[in-house]
Amino acid sequence: MCESNIYVVGPGEDDESAQLFLEAVDELLPEEAGSWRVTSIFGEQKILSGRIRSMHLVDHRIIFERSA
Amino acid sequence: MCESNIYVVGPGEDDESAQLFLEAVDELLPEEAGSWRVTSIFGEQKILSGRIRSMHLVDHRIIFERSA
Repeated sequence: MCESNIYVVGPGEDDESAQLFLEAVDELLPEEAGSWRVTSIFGEQKILSGRIRSMHLVDHRIIFERSA
Repeated sequence: MCESNIYVVGPGEDDESAQLFLEAVDELLPEEAGSWRVTSIFGEQKILSGRIRSMHLVDHRIIFERSA
């Protein structure tokens, strides 16, 4: 399966401080006002306010920077 | 490998009109001014001006809406 894990950092923080937000994400859909609805392959759904900082799909790794 | 294909639609167009932009993308990085640098597993790199409309990673499918 080709899902990714989503990690989140605070505004201006280094990637090294990223914390796991949701594992095994299949679907990412932008919502209004700079937030995203993310859904795992298990059907777990969360809303995340922030912007994408980087995506490395082969490593299953997406990093978001949370809104201030 | 868990790369995705990137498809692009014009502003306001349906997903059905999406056209392939780059295959087998590993890395997506936001650039300034609403554009993205995308890199395939083969090292091919392209710049895309627009916003992400949807990502379905298990289907290897990311759809961008091009800037007007």
